[in-house]
Amino acid sequence: MKGTLYGIGVGPGDPELLTFQAARIINESPVIAYPAPETGNSLSRQIANKYIPPGRTEIIIRTPMEVGSFPANEVYNEYAGQISNHLMEERDVAVLCEGDPFLYGSFMYIFLRLSDNFRTEVVPGVSSIGACSAAAGWPLVSRNQTLLIIPATLKFDDLIERISKADTVAIMKIGKHFDKVRAVIKRLRLCESSCYVEHASMIDQKVFPLNSIREMVAPYFSMILVRKLDR
Amino acid sequence: MKGTLYGIGVGPGDPELLTFQAARIINESPVIAYPAPETGNSLSRQIANKYIPPGRTEIIIRTPMEVGSFPANEVYNEYAGQISNHLMEERDVAVLCEGDPFLYGSFMYIFLRLSDNFRTEVVPGVSSIGACSAAAGWPLVSRNQTLLIIPATLKFDDLIERISKADTVAIMKIGKHFDKVRAVIKRLRLCESSCYVEHASMIDQKVFPLNSIREMVAPYFSMILVRKLDR
Repeated sequence: MKGTLYGIGVGPGDPELLTFQAARIINESPVIAYPAPETGNSLSRQIANKYIPPGRTEIIIRTPMEVGSFPANEVYNEYAGQISNHLMEERDVAVLCEGDPFLYGSFMYIFLRLSDNFRTEVVPGVSSIGACSAAAGWPLVSRNQTLLIIPATLKFDDLIERISKADTVAIMKIGKHFDKVRAVIKRLRLCESSCYVEHASMIDQKVFPLNSIREMVAPYFSMILVRKLDR
Repeated sequence: MKGTLYGIGVGPGDPELLTFQAARIINESPVIAYPAPETGNSLSRQIANKYIPPGRTEIIIRTPMEVGSFPANEVYNEYAGQISNHLMEERDVAVLCEGDPFLYGSFMYIFLRLSDNFRTEVVPGVSSIGACSAAAGWPLVSRNQTLLIIPATLKFDDLIERISKADTVAIMKIGKHFDKVRAVIKRLRLCESSCYVEHASMIDQKVFPLNSIREMVAPYFSMILVRKLDR
């Protein structure tokens, strides 16, 4: 008997957008792990705070969060080792993850290292894409329409090519790539049908039509939606 | 003062994948509306059942559910009229929707008719895409990867072109399009990296590698995931 590894989507930010399943498993798990920046608090820990009973073992997975800077393998090997030790001793481990674990979620780095050796379950969460479109009041796709989800980290020409061929596009993790992404959208003459959303569902949520923005220091948790089709 | 129109994502099927926010608003709303097939029960009503107090006014939006057969405008005009009447009389209306309301959700047909005239809020839900990838144990995208979401209703050549240029693909609403979609994936030599999921998160959930399937009568709520990138 070994413990079960859970990847828990805690949703986009509003603690009320947690699912009942996520809350139950977090509440029942003796060990809770969650990502955090090198310094400062963990967003996923804050979202789930109400459901973590006092006295639980907590593993803070501190990793570089800057866009473009992917955590070193050794960092994740070390945390996977800690989690593995708990699982070997029959303790379930719930790994928290903003949004949905399998959609750009940091849980993937743990999953790839441990899922072959331990029973693993993923609890899907509300993704930032749903939260951003809700915040903007913008339906994404219906009927025969297609949705492309891409990270802002792609190169200018790659963004041009992919966005030009898509219907609706969600460009994730804008952060320091704001100027590049806006230049792409301008080149494609799509500013009128684009919308910028940051911190969707959180207290400091912001929504702006892209063509209303002069300058922007975008946080990591921001997105631009582009809708090319008439509704 | 008029009532508020809520579009509520109730998630992919497991009632435990409802969010706290969805449950609260459903519980507080005097009028609950939900889609249902021409005959038979409403899935979204079943998912939310526990949170609907007895005695609430319920509007059953009966529409053709077959793939490719889109509800007539008049049907939705009629239901939007009923909902509008409640909102005018200061009663909030919660419209339930499987998955996420703005991702191929039937709520869109109500939203487009009423959101200009009434305060409208959308509660994002866990989408079937997150539920299918969780069921399959297949991470969708990380880092610089892109995800394309397309309906199986597209034509053969259109599917070929779009899938060939994408990284990871989620093909939604397979239903009677199973044979066509499989032929597309075979043509692209991607059967080995494709997975079929039906009724994700529900009691009758099924997950099969695509190349293990001989014949399939796929329901409407089914999906094929294609992952082209090494993990």
